[in-house]
Amino acid sequence: MAVNPNAESRLAGPVRVVGAGLLGTSVGLGLRARGIEVFLADASPTNVSIATDLGAGRPATAGDAPQLIVVAVPPDVTADVVERELADYPDAIVTDVASVKLQILDSLIARGADVSRYVGSHPMAGRERGGPLAGRADLFVGRPWVVAGHDAISYKRASAIDDLILDLGATLVEMSAEEHDRGVALISHVPQVVSSLMARRLVDAPSASVNLAGQGLRDVTRVAASDPELWVQILGANSTPVREILTAYREDLDRFIEALEDVNAPGARRRVAEEIAGGNTGVARLPGKHGIDKRFSTMIVMVDDTPGQLARLLHEIGEIGVNLEDLRLEHAQGVQVGLAEISVVPEAVERLTTELVARGWRIAG
Amino acid sequence: MAVNPNAESRLAGPVRVVGAGLLGTSVGLGLRARGIEVFLADASPTNVSIATDLGAGRPATAGDAPQLIVVAVPPDVTADVVERELADYPDAIVTDVASVKLQILDSLIARGADVSRYVGSHPMAGRERGGPLAGRADLFVGRPWVVAGHDAISYKRASAIDDLILDLGATLVEMSAEEHDRGVALISHVPQVVSSLMARRLVDAPSASVNLAGQGLRDVTRVAASDPELWVQILGANSTPVREILTAYREDLDRFIEALEDVNAPGARRRVAEEIAGGNTGVARLPGKHGIDKRFSTMIVMVDDTPGQLARLLHEIGEIGVNLEDLRLEHAQGVQVGLAEISVVPEAVERLTTELVARGWRIAG
Repeated sequence: MAVNPNAESRLAGPVRVVGAGLLGTSVGLGLRARGIEVFLADASPTNVSIATDLGAGRPATAGDAPQLIVVAVPPDVTADVVERELADYPDAIVTDVASVKLQILDSLIARGADVSRYVGSHPMAGRERGGPLAGRADLFVGRPWVVAGHDAISYKRASAIDDLILDLGATLVEMSAEEHDRGVALISHVPQVVSSLMARRLVDAPSASVNLAGQGLRDVTRVAASDPELWVQILGANSTPVREILTAYREDLDRFIEALEDVNAPGARRRVAEEIAGGNTGVARLPGKHGIDKRFSTMIVMVDDTPGQLARLLHEIGEIGVNLEDLRLEHAQGVQVGLAEISVVPEAVERLTTELVARGWRIAG
Repeated sequence: MAVNPNAESRLAGPVRVVGAGLLGTSVGLGLRARGIEVFLADASPTNVSIATDLGAGRPATAGDAPQLIVVAVPPDVTADVVERELADYPDAIVTDVASVKLQILDSLIARGADVSRYVGSHPMAGRERGGPLAGRADLFVGRPWVVAGHDAISYKRASAIDDLILDLGATLVEMSAEEHDRGVALISHVPQVVSSLMARRLVDAPSASVNLAGQGLRDVTRVAASDPELWVQILGANSTPVREILTAYREDLDRFIEALEDVNAPGARRRVAEEIAGGNTGVARLPGKHGIDKRFSTMIVMVDDTPGQLARLLHEIGEIGVNLEDLRLEHAQGVQVGLAEISVVPEAVERLTTELVARGWRIAG
């Protein structure tokens, strides 16, 4: 029943999860790990039975009385499912985890759904693989999870969503649906388009050119491997802010192309420099340790491409007493050697270099 | 003297390096490691003395008789310096390492320089930091190094460049100056512009939005941190192919923006899907282990953000007997935990997961 054996959890009552894919199964696993009862529903009975076997909850039944319902279905059917859940469970609070928020809220209001019990949310987490088998109890740990509050739901009711997020170990971020959608358009949807269109340029390129590609192009185009079907739904649901940002991007691009038409014309080189410098300013605003982080210096150490070598390197860096701030592996083309790019505080570079060289490591940069 | 004590090296005579920055110093260090005599010249006496102290060669003197001259100066002065070197050393073969090739060759021919002794080249290697102190003997190991051959130089003469490249451990790639310039426009220069313009969109964005950014945006904008001054020179020297590719990119972008104007119009969603799917096809052509490599499966393991933890993880993966194909570290926002994304062959995932969980590791995805 709805008794929660784990004193640490915030949620009290049982949770119904609709959609036992990656996100739904992960929600179920995370809540079960805290002893919270979970009822699983999915249009696919197979998904329900896999998620149940994994320990994400038990199959939903007619008599369930959930406190909270988490709708984790594809974006294009989310509003329909939320509407139905609100009607079927008149005492439950309902949230969804779709990556676009305003269209769903507007659609629910337009249909006369009881949005005093609905608040949309969006965990900034995912994996390359989908489906219940990819689900993990820890999927949301440390990830931002946006709650898109609105005026029609009371603070007290919405707090059930906050409890869900904190129980799953995520970081609660509050913003309006409009702010959220514009935010994800900028930090996720437009970068996806920019990356996909860049990767498209490779389709008909000569192999000799493509084979020269290094880490720069690989980074710019990594997300271009994403699922087209999902992105049609996301971009379709968030077309207004995505189009606005892409239009501003195109204005910069037009200016850039114009400057390249005659690079010796007065002001042309200055314009090119300004656009690149603007990129410097923009990228410096990104949080986290990745990217070219000015707080850290990077070194490249050559590592034989055999098991245990990288572990030995990191073990020895630990012995030397330097804290590794970041690590990336690069594999050079055509040779059995990897390049480990390590980030450390600038003060440590000289000593670390000396010590690693003394231990026989080759520093490649 | 021009005697080479190292039987393994291919180059016989001494090499004059003009420009003791990152690339020139690295060439010097790599050649000295093979026992080849190196003469260092630079407009800055400080650079020469630093590079000399590092062991990259000795300062050039008036009586030097180099077999080969490597010009490693900024792109916008490369043609001038090559021309002068060809005139000053009538018995030497001259190459340069600038990242754009056709303009230099055309310029030398237009000036009547003796291009029967010149062949341009381009090592696909670099570092975030420049200057002689960043130089490394191993900088070029395993990297492609393009030789842009042309009809005015004989096969025999050009072979000195091949020897240089092989002595430095790089992989020789032959293509015409036009092919090279178009190739690097596609795989390096256009991605730089695309990334910089994306990062520019972040300049005036609300912090709340920027703080939601994940690995996708960080990857797309990583190269946007590059030096504007250098890029003005590169883009200025390769403006024609860059403009052509950017124009094709803009045509796709225009179609994309148009499709987003009314995503419910007939064909609009299909067009969006086609552009994203085209990106899938393009990115699949990239060489190397990086990106979303279909040959490998990824797992995310949670690692405490303290020294030695990552080393312990990798050590234990080695003990389990699984070869790590790739590794990336992600730092979740606001928590003292890192996420290590490891790539292994798909067959190993199940066993590795079981063994790691048994050893107390948390698998986050």
